[in-house]
Amino acid sequence: MEFINDPKQYTDTVELVKNSVGQEVTFRGTVHRVRDMSDFAFLIVRTERGLVQCTFQGDTLGDIQRADVKDAMVVEVTGKVHEEPRAEHGVEVVLSRISILARPYDQLPVPLGKKYMGLSLDVDLPLRPVTLRHPIKQAVFRVQGAIADGFAEYMLSQGFTHIHTPKIVSAGAEGGANIFKLDYFGQQAYLAQSPQFYKQYTAGVFGRVFEIGNVYRAERHNTSRHLNEYIGLDFEMAYIDSMYDVMQMETGMLKYVLNYVKEHCPEELALLKADIPEIKEIPSIRFHEAKEIMESKFGHKSKNRYDLNPDEEVMLCDWAKQEHGSEFVFVTHFPSSKRPFYAMDDPDDKKLALSFDLLFRGLEITTGGQRIHDYQEQIDKLAERNMNAELFESFTMLHKYGMPPHGGLGIGLERLTMQLLKLANVRDASMFPRDMNRLEP
Amino acid sequence: MEFINDPKQYTDTVELVKNSVGQEVTFRGTVHRVRDMSDFAFLIVRTERGLVQCTFQGDTLGDIQRADVKDAMVVEVTGKVHEEPRAEHGVEVVLSRISILARPYDQLPVPLGKKYMGLSLDVDLPLRPVTLRHPIKQAVFRVQGAIADGFAEYMLSQGFTHIHTPKIVSAGAEGGANIFKLDYFGQQAYLAQSPQFYKQYTAGVFGRVFEIGNVYRAERHNTSRHLNEYIGLDFEMAYIDSMYDVMQMETGMLKYVLNYVKEHCPEELALLKADIPEIKEIPSIRFHEAKEIMESKFGHKSKNRYDLNPDEEVMLCDWAKQEHGSEFVFVTHFPSSKRPFYAMDDPDDKKLALSFDLLFRGLEITTGGQRIHDYQEQIDKLAERNMNAELFESFTMLHKYGMPPHGGLGIGLERLTMQLLKLANVRDASMFPRDMNRLEP
Repeated sequence: MEFINDPKQYTDTVELVKNSVGQEVTFRGTVHRVRDMSDFAFLIVRTERGLVQCTFQGDTLGDIQRADVKDAMVVEVTGKVHEEPRAEHGVEVVLSRISILARPYDQLPVPLGKKYMGLSLDVDLPLRPVTLRHPIKQAVFRVQGAIADGFAEYMLSQGFTHIHTPKIVSAGAEGGANIFKLDYFGQQAYLAQSPQFYKQYTAGVFGRVFEIGNVYRAERHNTSRHLNEYIGLDFEMAYIDSMYDVMQMETGMLKYVLNYVKEHCPEELALLKADIPEIKEIPSIRFHEAKEIMESKFGHKSKNRYDLNPDEEVMLCDWAKQEHGSEFVFVTHFPSSKRPFYAMDDPDDKKLALSFDLLFRGLEITTGGQRIHDYQEQIDKLAERNMNAELFESFTMLHKYGMPPHGGLGIGLERLTMQLLKLANVRDASMFPRDMNRLEP
Repeated sequence: MEFINDPKQYTDTVELVKNSVGQEVTFRGTVHRVRDMSDFAFLIVRTERGLVQCTFQGDTLGDIQRADVKDAMVVEVTGKVHEEPRAEHGVEVVLSRISILARPYDQLPVPLGKKYMGLSLDVDLPLRPVTLRHPIKQAVFRVQGAIADGFAEYMLSQGFTHIHTPKIVSAGAEGGANIFKLDYFGQQAYLAQSPQFYKQYTAGVFGRVFEIGNVYRAERHNTSRHLNEYIGLDFEMAYIDSMYDVMQMETGMLKYVLNYVKEHCPEELALLKADIPEIKEIPSIRFHEAKEIMESKFGHKSKNRYDLNPDEEVMLCDWAKQEHGSEFVFVTHFPSSKRPFYAMDDPDDKKLALSFDLLFRGLEITTGGQRIHDYQEQIDKLAERNMNAELFESFTMLHKYGMPPHGGLGIGLERLTMQLLKLANVRDASMFPRDMNRLEP
C-alpha cells in the first residue's frame, strides 16, 4: 500500500545543461557517437530534445572502461558543465561518473552518428524504429507534431470543438472504389475516406468543429505524394456567409501554425535549414482563370478540363510566387462534376462547385468548400449522381431537420510537413508510411 | 482574382449577448424551442455554446410572421439586449429583425426542446446526428473534447512529443483473436489494438511521446462498458526508474485534466450536475493485496486468480473511497501470464508483471506498466509464449539496437468521460458508438 503523487518536476536535459555552467549535472541519454581521442573520448549523448557533448577523461570512471563505451548504450552520466563554443549548445560536460542502463545487442545497421545518413528510402523505411533516432529525422517529426498542436491551439481559440469520430464506417464519403473494406461482425464495413459526414453532423451540433485523425485511401498510386493512410487536419464551420469564410479561417490558421512552429521548434528548423514562408494574404483565382493564366503566362494548353494536373499545380505556384510573392495560392470554383456529392454548386453557374483547393509550393495540400445544407438540394444531388439516397439516410437526416449554411476543409498533415520542410517524398514526412507495398513497421 | 486574409474576430455568441446589455446585437443560431404566449413568443435560440432567449413581439417582424417561426429553423436575428434574470445567462434579446437562413423539411423526431429528452438508447443512437443537438449531449461531448485537450496540454508541458501513428498494421500488439482483419492490396492486415509498438519505437526516438487516436478491439462483448472502436489517450516515457514514474505522470495528468475541464466547461458541468473529484494522491495496492482486502473487508472470496472481475473493481473503489477518500485506486503487480508479451516481469517474482490498472468509480480506465527494454529478455518472453519472433522483427529491432528503460499507459477516453460524468453506458460517452450491432451513423 502506497500513495502516488505528482511526477518530479520536468526539465529538458539540454536546457538543464545549458543553464548549469560551472555546476554538476546528472542526466540520462543514449550514446549517439563516441569519438576516441587516444587519452580521452568525446561521448555525444542523445537526450529527448538534443545532443550533449561529454568528455570521458582517463581510462576508467569507476568500474567503466573508456574503451567499453559504445554507440547506442543507454547511460546515466554525472559531470561538471563547462563552456565550450565548439560543442552543441556551447557547453560540454566533463564526466565524473557514468553508469550503463541498457546495452545494444548488435552494431547499428545505419550510420546514426553521422551528420547525414544518406540512406535510400528502401534502406530507411524498414529500419524506421532505428533511423528515426537520427537528429534530422527527429526534427522533422517534432515539427510535424508542432504543426498539429498549433492547428489545435488555433482552432480552440476560434471557438471550435475538438471532435473524435469513428473510422469504421458503413459508407464512403468521397465515393469511388478507393476504399478499404473489412468484415465487421459479418457486416460489410469500410475505413473512412474522410471524417466528412461526422464533421457535418457535429457542425450542426457545436457550430464549429475540428478533428485530427487518420484517413484512408485505397488508391493504387505509388507516387512521391500519395499515402494510403494519412493524418487529416479537418475543420467544419456553420453559419457561414460563403466558402470565403472557410478560406479566411485557413489563412488565419496557417499564419498561426507557422508562427507556432517557429516558436516551438527553433533548433529543429535550424537543423533542417527550413525556409518558413511569411503569409500576408493568399491570392485566390478561379479554376477557369487558373487555366487562362497558365496559357497566357506559360503558353500551357491544359488538356484536363476538370482538375489540375500535378505540373499545373507547380506552374500556378510559380505564378503566385512571381506575381504576388506568395508560396500559397487558392483555386476556387472547380467543375462540379469532379467534386463530391455534398459540395454546394454555385447558384450563378450550376456547373461549378463552391469548392477550393489550396496549393503550396507546387502541391495541393487542402480541399474544401461550402456544403449543401438544404435537404431537397442534397436529395436532388444524390439522384443526379445516381446514388441511392436510402443508403445515405443517416447523412441526409442532417439536412432534413434543419442545418445552417456550413463549410470546411481537410489538410493532409504529411503533405503540409513535406512542403514546409521541402522534403522530396511524402514518405519522409510520415514516420511509418503506409503505401501499396508497405505495412511494416 | 482576390486576396484572402484573416477571418473576422471570433466572439462566442453567448459572451457577446451577455456583454451587450442595453445594446443591439446581431447573431445566428437555430431555433431550439418556440413558446408562443398569444401576443408574443419566446424563441430560444441555440448558438455554438449555449441557448439565448429572444422575444418576438407583435405578429410580424419585416416579412416574417410570428406564427411561421418553427423549431429547427436556422435564423439570423437582431435585437436589443435586456437583463432578464429568469432567462438563460440572465439576458434576453428583444428582436427587431429576423431572417430565415435555412428550414427543416420535417418535424423533429425527438423532443429536442425539452430539458430532458428521456430517450432509450435504441431510439437515441440511430438519430445521433439530431439528438446530439440537445444541450445535455452537447455538454457531454464538449467535456470529452476538453479532457483530450487537457491531456495534450499537460503532456506537452512535460516534454512529451505528440505522435500520429498508423492504425493499419501487420500484427496485433495485444494478442488474441480480438482483432479486425482487412485486405491490404492483397496482404492480410489488421486494425491496431493499441499504438503500443509505435509508442515504444518513438519513446526510443523522442524519449517521451503521447498520442490521441482510434483503437480497435473486435471483442464480442455487448456490455455497457465495451466499444469496438474507441479513442485511446496513450503515452510512453523513457529513462524511467520504475513503473511508479508512469503512475506519477498519470496522477499529475489527471489532476491537470480535471482542473482543465473545470476551467473550460463550467456551464457544461453545471448543466450535467457533474461531480468532479479532487485528487490529492492516489492509493496503490498490489493485486494480491487487493484480493486480501476484498476478503477481509467485504468477505469476498475471489475466484479469479489472474484478473479483477467487474464487481471486484467496484468493491476496490468502494474501499478506496471509504478508507482513503479517493475515487481512484491503482492496482499493481498483476499475474504476468495475463499481461502482454511486452510487459516487464518483476525481477523479484517473475510470476508478476510490473504493470498496473487504474480504477475510477468502479471501472478500469487505464492499463499500463514498465516494458521490457532488453533484447534477450524480449526474445525469451516471445519464446516462452510460443510466439514466432520472426513475425516481430520490426518490433524487437527496437531492443536490439539499444533501448532505455521505459513504460507507459493507455486510457479509454470514453470510459474516463463516462465515469467522470456518471453516465450509465459507454455509448452515452461516444458520439457515434461502434458496437457489435452498430456501424451507423
